[in-house]
Amino acid sequence: MTLFDDLKAAIGADWPAYTEHEFVHELGAGTLPLPVFQDYLVQDYLFLVQFARANALAAYKSRSLADIVDASRALSAILHETELHRRLTASWGIAAEELDRAPEKQATVAYTRYVLDCGMSGDLLDLHVALAPCTIGYAEIGTALDPARRSRPDHPYAEWIAEYAGGDFQDAAGAAVARLDALAGGPVTGPRFDALVDVFRAATRLEADFWQQALDSTR
Amino acid sequence: MTLFDDLKAAIGADWPAYTEHEFVHELGAGTLPLPVFQDYLVQDYLFLVQFARANALAAYKSRSLADIVDASRALSAILHETELHRRLTASWGIAAEELDRAPEKQATVAYTRYVLDCGMSGDLLDLHVALAPCTIGYAEIGTALDPARRSRPDHPYAEWIAEYAGGDFQDAAGAAVARLDALAGGPVTGPRFDALVDVFRAATRLEADFWQQALDSTR
Amino acid sequence: MTLFDDLKAAIGADWPAYTEHEFVHELGAGTLPLPVFQDYLVQDYLFLVQFARANALAAYKSRSLADIVDASRALSAILHETELHRRLTASWGIAAEELDRAPEKQATVAYTRYVLDCGMSGDLLDLHVALAPCTIGYAEIGTALDPARRSRPDHPYAEWIAEYAGGDFQDAAGAAVARLDALAGGPVTGPRFDALVDVFRAATRLEADFWQQALDSTR
Amino acid sequence: MTLFDDLKAAIGADWPAYTEHEFVHELGAGTLPLPVFQDYLVQDYLFLVQFARANALAAYKSRSLADIVDASRALSAILHETELHRRLTASWGIAAEELDRAPEKQATVAYTRYVLDCGMSGDLLDLHVALAPCTIGYAEIGTALDPARRSRPDHPYAEWIAEYAGGDFQDAAGAAVARLDALAGGPVTGPRFDALVDVFRAATRLEADFWQQALDSTR
Repeated sequence: MTLFDDLKAAIGADWPAYTEHEFVHELGAGTLPLPVFQDYLVQDYLFLVQFARANALAAYKSRSLADIVDASRALSAILHETELHRRLTASWGIAAEELDRAPEKQATVAYTRYVLDCGMSGDLLDLHVALAPCTIGYAEIGTALDPARRSRPDHPYAEWIAEYAGGDFQDAAGAAVARLDALAGGPVTGPRFDALVDVFRAATRLEADFWQQALDSTR
Repeated sequence: MTLFDDLKAAIGADWPAYTEHEFVHELGAGTLPLPVFQDYLVQDYLFLVQFARANALAAYKSRSLADIVDASRALSAILHETELHRRLTASWGIAAEELDRAPEKQATVAYTRYVLDCGMSGDLLDLHVALAPCTIGYAEIGTALDPARRSRPDHPYAEWIAEYAGGDFQDAAGAAVARLDALAGGPVTGPRFDALVDVFRAATRLEADFWQQALDSTR
Repeated sequence: MTLFDDLKAAIGADWPAYTEHEFVHELGAGTLPLPVFQDYLVQDYLFLVQFARANALAAYKSRSLADIVDASRALSAILHETELHRRLTASWGIAAEELDRAPEKQATVAYTRYVLDCGMSGDLLDLHVALAPCTIGYAEIGTALDPARRSRPDHPYAEWIAEYAGGDFQDAAGAAVARLDALAGGPVTGPRFDALVDVFRAATRLEADFWQQALDSTR
Repeated sequence: MTLFDDLKAAIGADWPAYTEHEFVHELGAGTLPLPVFQDYLVQDYLFLVQFARANALAAYKSRSLADIVDASRALSAILHETELHRRLTASWGIAAEELDRAPEKQATVAYTRYVLDCGMSGDLLDLHVALAPCTIGYAEIGTALDPARRSRPDHPYAEWIAEYAGGDFQDAAGAAVARLDALAGGPVTGPRFDALVDVFRAATRLEADFWQQALDSTR
């Protein structure tokens, strides 16, 4: 059992409420209205800008060169991930400057700043636990939706699913699971575990709110 | 003209959308349903815990003992403000422990963590600009609602209005206005002013969302 | 055994090299040249300004109102401690403004910024471990030197010794010992303990360097 | 005139006291004893670990993706710079693990943590001003010493001089000069300029202390 497994078990139904959210189902089924996906992707781009900052924070909080190098690679991976967003939004006629100027919505602000504050006020493990629903959860979702993508050559969200089901993202997620255990340096119990569960649950709920925000955007 | 006046002018309708929000009108008129006010006050208590942290951050960011002493007084004032919340919630039968355990809602997380992140990633002026809609705006609202309170001996929200219309809070707001000018150290123009306006507008909108969150709680 | 006892045991001779430093012996014996003590006290004042910031950082890093209140009290205690410094320096004809303008020497910068960086990059326990040689060590030193003070009505450093041997400071040190155990939330072992020992040893050595800096000032 | 020129002019003799320090002269003349250079290089490696963290902090403090990308490149450049150190120390028989375990000396702690604290408590401009004596000063020194290197095929410190006189480092320094002006967003005057001068002077003196620490290591 990894620390990540323990955290997932500890928050029970909150985890599938995020990874199996209506937004995810419709995304996989290809029935998600394009305007909903577009609203999501613009906010997700703004989200990644803040997540890049959170990974820079992880590098700052590192005590060894090896950890700085590790965080620096994670930062580069996120900067690379934004290219998917720029490519897709460009295909819809949204210019890069427009993307950078789009206002952050409330669920975007809530999730990103919560993670940054957790990471700044806690230690490196707190930060990576707050990042986990994103870094590890998206890999789970990518894997879950990949069969649907493969079954339809014209799947409207094929490129998105392929990114998160792809080897690079899956490897990064595996590394994130291992990093949590390495940072914990042994079994985590008692008040420290409870505090990490609080962070993990809050971050997971904020991820679910992020899907919901997109669904609500056209209602 | 103070920097605060300039900021308020720059965001136009966003300021009254916060200070003259439907929640504020109903609060003054005494028609705000008690459950809405209760929802607000519990979230506002959680908000103040984070605002106390933001004032501690201001003390940390200070370079002179005088500024640390100033921030330390602001921190004490907030700790004192929470006593109003404990008094009111106790009168409704909500125990102190229950208050501390109440989950933060999305608009609460969004506003508080936005301010903390602004303050951490920017300088002391950025931080105080992000705090201004709360520290200065509440004083404006207190003053605006005070005649309604005085006109009715049985005003249901008399204690709340009296706190923010009272001399201590008004003095703190006046000091906050002066502090912005002192930190700016002269006229603020160009990209620096634009950046401060962005922070001030975002924080003001998040305050309006905070009122709205309470109104939505019973809908 | 408290965590503080474990840390002290783990760094062996580094602890008495600080608490029983030549500076301390001469201070107790009353043979410390006044210019050395004056150099020390001016730097210690600048040190306390940064330590006040470190305690503000502890308040920022807190997650509960109770912890914020606790840190806020520690901050006030430090602001009070600076009054001893202002009183003594004033008696030597050093004006308050001069004190605030005195340049920080290298050992002052090294120790204070090390603690602030530990606290910012680590968690609340890391921060309090970095503060411990000061908050707890000075109480040990005060107690050790108090008999010498009592034996001589004209002890030249009576006021300094009385401050740190006094009940207020001793109580604060006792609270600091208890805080470390509370923050640890149980026995600390393995890599986490090793990391805390590294911080504690480094901070203790920087305290000893701080005494040495004063001794070197007139050589 | 760039902001960097203004800062250099403002601190007068403190700049050449760093860039033309005895250590630098002997390094250029090739008369610096190898043990002194070795002591320096080990400490400079530990210094770069903290400077990598400072550049990660710059990425964290950024508000736009472009700034994050810029800081991320600076971070990568520092990680690359450490390879020079690993190469040279390996040639002296110092293993990588030994390098990572070497204790930081006082001047190393003072300079690195001062920069990190400046950057954390101030804004992005404060941080880059604190970094400037290193990022820009080393390029000046590299250029100044390069003729000496070229005049002697067997110059004992040829590799070090070539690194800092080389195009990559010179380009990075040019970018750092331009970044200061971009962050300032116009002329900087009054108290803001004075505060930046304080930071720049302190950082420059701490760099000179860093050379001195190496010279003192064998005395």
